[in-house]
Amino acid sequence: MKVYEKLLKIQVSKNSRLCVGLDPRIELLPKPFKKKLRDLLKFLEIIIEITHPFACAYKINFAFFEQYGSKGLRLIESIKKTIPNDIITIADVKRSDIGSTSQAYAKSIYSHFGFHSATLNPYLGIDSLLPFFEYEDRLNFVLICTSNPGSADFQKIKVGDLFFFEIVLDKLATFYPSENLGLVVGATNTKEFKIVREKCQSNFILAPGIGAQGGNLSEILVTNQNFPLLVNVSRDIIFAGSNEDFETQILNKTKYYFEQLKIVK
Amino acid sequence: MKVYEKLLKIQVSKNSRLCVGLDPRIELLPKPFKKKLRDLLKFLEIIIEITHPFACAYKINFAFFEQYGSKGLRLIESIKKTIPNDIITIADVKRSDIGSTSQAYAKSIYSHFGFHSATLNPYLGIDSLLPFFEYEDRLNFVLICTSNPGSADFQKIKVGDLFFFEIVLDKLATFYPSENLGLVVGATNTKEFKIVREKCQSNFILAPGIGAQGGNLSEILVTNQNFPLLVNVSRDIIFAGSNEDFETQILNKTKYYFEQLKIVK
Repeated sequence: MKVYEKLLKIQVSKNSRLCVGLDPRIELLPKPFKKKLRDLLKFLEIIIEITHPFACAYKINFAFFEQYGSKGLRLIESIKKTIPNDIITIADVKRSDIGSTSQAYAKSIYSHFGFHSATLNPYLGIDSLLPFFEYEDRLNFVLICTSNPGSADFQKIKVGDLFFFEIVLDKLATFYPSENLGLVVGATNTKEFKIVREKCQSNFILAPGIGAQGGNLSEILVTNQNFPLLVNVSRDIIFAGSNEDFETQILNKTKYYFEQLKIVK
Repeated sequence: MKVYEKLLKIQVSKNSRLCVGLDPRIELLPKPFKKKLRDLLKFLEIIIEITHPFACAYKINFAFFEQYGSKGLRLIESIKKTIPNDIITIADVKRSDIGSTSQAYAKSIYSHFGFHSATLNPYLGIDSLLPFFEYEDRLNFVLICTSNPGSADFQKIKVGDLFFFEIVLDKLATFYPSENLGLVVGATNTKEFKIVREKCQSNFILAPGIGAQGGNLSEILVTNQNFPLLVNVSRDIIFAGSNEDFETQILNKTKYYFEQLKIVK
């Protein structure tokens, strides 16, 4: 079954659009943990146990693992094994390269680590993404309009009547089928979100930027009521508590976002 | 000493603009080697021994290591230790992300792995690159115009009188000092190379795309005679030979490119 279809089914069966972002940081581990890599694994296992009933996907942010080098990647290999098979896994890597290098990145994410999905950067052009799309069952989330202030620098410059990100979007959507092409649109961009959704109604949109980054959840839910949407929350859930009661705090925050993000309320 | 200055000094002392790209592939290892990760390390150690007198930098392409997961990154950690200190190391990672994620990537490349330089992707805007530039002694090579056909899709679209990559370049050059801002311009883009060089004369340009990718070396050398330039050759050197005499073949190819790329001939 294609990841696109699998994700839709999980969303309906769990009545959830929630994606939990695993962005671990040793320095933010709750009190009961030592500030060590081994404890990071224990912490993430607890997060997965608590959030699994409410989430349809986990987004693993490679940067926070790569900062520990090979040991960090070994941690991803370990965590990946503990994630149940009935949930989608997204490698948040924002990779971009050309030719055989892009092939090697796709092999890393989809063959070696075995993720369902990856986030990708489009600056190098359509051909640079092809090796990821050659894994025909996977769902690639390509950056369209990001949640940071710097998204205005290049993504939102005007090219004739269009924003630059629209040109990127139009070309991608012409070339790649919607069931393989997911789109990353930061939740801080409510106006841009509407533009993307008007053009692409069957593509999954992955919306980061909720919680700590201040994105507007209710507006986005209105725009996307009947379309495939995945909303990521990272820090606001996984670092909800810093003391002994951290598990209760995480559960409460997870339930809060789960309620907000139900498909049928 | 800043990496910019160190690289200039090495180039003068070795009379070389040659950067050797370490893009290892088990399947291409010469006959004497087993197709195993351990042999990849041996092979790369030999490459470094042969090429070191002629090169001013090594570019390590992370994708080819990441395809082996944590073991691949351990290989980078091992190789990094065998590279002598009198040569510049570039992490070819083309990373791009925002906020604390970009910080974690910068920490990975510059603190954990300890590279002098990294390649970065500008699509997410000026602020996304900032954590790398906060390592003030390092030299960041940002993608401007790449060597693949797909560079025409977005980088070369026209925005008024300018190419899109010129807008990227102008903004980057306004914001970041030239001794921290290197530029990646594919050697297949001779016209675009001239445009970049007219705008930015003191920035280092890293030119991949020579050899296997068919870039035009002589034209680029004319355009850059008096400016800081680093030309990368990967496959054409490291996989110059597939049999028992592979070391001789590698040495010959290295010397060939060294001759071509001398600063003073």
